[in-house]
Amino acid sequence: MNFTIDAGRLWDSLTVTARIGATGRGGLCRLALGEADREVRDWLRQAVEAIGCTVTVDEVGNMFALYPGRRPDLAPIAIGSHLDTQPTGGRFDGILGVLGGLEMLRTLHDRGHVTEAPLVLVDWANEEGARFAPAMLGSGVHAGVFDVAYAHGRTDADGVTFGAALERIGCRGLAGAGAFRLGALFELHIEQGPILEAEGQVIGIVTGVQGARWYDVRLTGASAHTGATPMAMRRNALLGAACLIEAVEAIAQDHAPGALAAVGRIECRPNSRNVVPGVVDLTVDLRHPDDRVLERMETALMTVIADAAASAGLDHGVDRIWDSPSVRFDPDCIAAVRAGAADAGFAGREIVSGAGHDAVYVARVAPTAMIFVPCRGGISHNEAESATPEHCAAGAQVLLNAVLRYDTRSHGGSPP
Amino acid sequence: MNFTIDAGRLWDSLTVTARIGATGRGGLCRLALGEADREVRDWLRQAVEAIGCTVTVDEVGNMFALYPGRRPDLAPIAIGSHLDTQPTGGRFDGILGVLGGLEMLRTLHDRGHVTEAPLVLVDWANEEGARFAPAMLGSGVHAGVFDVAYAHGRTDADGVTFGAALERIGCRGLAGAGAFRLGALFELHIEQGPILEAEGQVIGIVTGVQGARWYDVRLTGASAHTGATPMAMRRNALLGAACLIEAVEAIAQDHAPGALAAVGRIECRPNSRNVVPGVVDLTVDLRHPDDRVLERMETALMTVIADAAASAGLDHGVDRIWDSPSVRFDPDCIAAVRAGAADAGFAGREIVSGAGHDAVYVARVAPTAMIFVPCRGGISHNEAESATPEHCAAGAQVLLNAVLRYDTRSHGGSPP
Repeated sequence: MNFTIDAGRLWDSLTVTARIGATGRGGLCRLALGEADREVRDWLRQAVEAIGCTVTVDEVGNMFALYPGRRPDLAPIAIGSHLDTQPTGGRFDGILGVLGGLEMLRTLHDRGHVTEAPLVLVDWANEEGARFAPAMLGSGVHAGVFDVAYAHGRTDADGVTFGAALERIGCRGLAGAGAFRLGALFELHIEQGPILEAEGQVIGIVTGVQGARWYDVRLTGASAHTGATPMAMRRNALLGAACLIEAVEAIAQDHAPGALAAVGRIECRPNSRNVVPGVVDLTVDLRHPDDRVLERMETALMTVIADAAASAGLDHGVDRIWDSPSVRFDPDCIAAVRAGAADAGFAGREIVSGAGHDAVYVARVAPTAMIFVPCRGGISHNEAESATPEHCAAGAQVLLNAVLRYDTRSHGGSPP
Repeated sequence: MNFTIDAGRLWDSLTVTARIGATGRGGLCRLALGEADREVRDWLRQAVEAIGCTVTVDEVGNMFALYPGRRPDLAPIAIGSHLDTQPTGGRFDGILGVLGGLEMLRTLHDRGHVTEAPLVLVDWANEEGARFAPAMLGSGVHAGVFDVAYAHGRTDADGVTFGAALERIGCRGLAGAGAFRLGALFELHIEQGPILEAEGQVIGIVTGVQGARWYDVRLTGASAHTGATPMAMRRNALLGAACLIEAVEAIAQDHAPGALAAVGRIECRPNSRNVVPGVVDLTVDLRHPDDRVLERMETALMTVIADAAASAGLDHGVDRIWDSPSVRFDPDCIAAVRAGAADAGFAGREIVSGAGHDAVYVARVAPTAMIFVPCRGGISHNEAESATPEHCAAGAQVLLNAVLRYDTRSHGGSPP
């Protein structure tokens, strides 16, 4: 492969834009459609226009920078991710995917290379969902998961609607959402988990996103004076909860490899040091790349909830509040990533994404794959989020290689 | 036994005074040294003065109503408890001990009976500790556990000191705290637990108060994305906590009978449904009537904390924040209660108090015992706290009988 991205220029982009919405602790607060988001979008617009891109913003704020190809009749191959962050977010989550895509376009521009299909760099609006719930709103509208009116009506904590916020920063575009049909999407992202780092791998070849189901569980016993209530007369809700927490762990072990599970949240009432707990509310998060296994995990969960409740003499209730089916990325896109990694000298490691991404929704309407690079300690959604210049550059290089491979294979373009 | 208390009059006293500080839900909010406390103290003063008592208030607000005996040289036999309540407290906790004592004095007064020793009805100040921590402050100063300046300096949530609150309601007396030496104390109280009700018993002959030790435990792992962190790479603080909660239950089972234990309070961080918990703080409450067994329970606790932490790869810390040794009441006082119960036709059931009471501190400076009557469902510190007129009357009758037995045996008075 002859085209090598400019690692220093990529790092400069990451560093310069990290001043926009910078927090005091090395992180970013660049909430969707806020002033910092407007400013970084303006920065991006200038950067892409400087290399001959045409920018289109759709009616929900997704920003598309079209880099012309040889054949305007082909649907463009998309690259990108998002530039918005959590309130105390990091400098790489989403941002690497956009700025890595920019670096890739700059490299092609420098070399005067024209792909068969047009390319399009996308900044999806409101991926984080931190200001306007739900997350992945822009890509969700693009993929037809949400309708435009629903998106425009979302409100932030101050009662400002998504639609009004779009207008306020001048990003309520004229293009119909979803009208911009994509030929494929390649999203570069930090892993947000510890696997690549632990295994000394640089490139994750993301084959899909695991399914996830979330549950709210209530265990109800009877609060009682710890000093005055014999053990045999208690209905200790926290004791049932303890049994359930361990059983949830066992469900993950029983469905290894690939299964993940945990109780993340627990609220105990009255939560007083000398009172036997009467009510415990807790949440369960079950994940697996195979929805059939996830279904079996759910069946096991229902059994262990009933058993845990019975063991402590409790009543129980359970609600499944979220069901996100697994996603398998497109085999051709995955193959392009694998080949692109090899071209750059990386073996790569197949990995299933634990977190949701814009690619999850886009995969419903276009062939899609993702590329992961390591982040320190697996830490993300945190100002301490960190990735090395070398790993960022490797990710952008594999992104470039994968897109060229895909363009060549799909459209018969000549390899550079 | 010839003297029978007036069950209807006792119930009237309970009903009339329950209007002072009544909540909307059948309970009481009569915080120590508040306006309602002043009002009920005034009511009590009028009631006791009407039967010839002399009221003395000491410098920390303990109220002593002296009912003369044949021999003013003898230290008076005390009866009583407290009239203050929790913010959403019940109508019986403490109150039955004071008004049962009043009913007993009224009965003696009606019959013209004079005991050898004087009698004194006591309303201990600030038993609940709800407005001014710690609990049992008035009886604690009386017994020399706390000094007067410490008590006067306690502040409520509004910054009002205990001393200022005493003055505001005119209850900062001139008598030195503890100067009022007691010959004995008999405290009638609702059980605040479910044992008597469950066994169909009416009278609990309280032989002592169990020892209690309280601990703060912190388990520290690492918070991580539930969807992106393999099971084997987790340090799940809540999983360690679950193991510990079950082990604390086992400690109580292993030291049966008489052992009680529970984790009452748990705080999990970050407490988010898709994050593996990184830190859990929890509290442990261990109780046993025998301090030597309690010591062994503590040794077991330290082992299971270390084991639970190790099992989940956690760091741990533990602080013992409270150590309340067990109390054994005076054998002669207990014998008087047992005989008094038999005189009233009740077998009685020996019981160890789970909760603390003014009698715990007074037992340090005078022979002491307690009488328990059932409360519905063992519920207390709650507006739903409830006791039947029959059980209240039975308790007051046994109180009267026990005091007369004690007076006769100790001072050679003639039985009525």
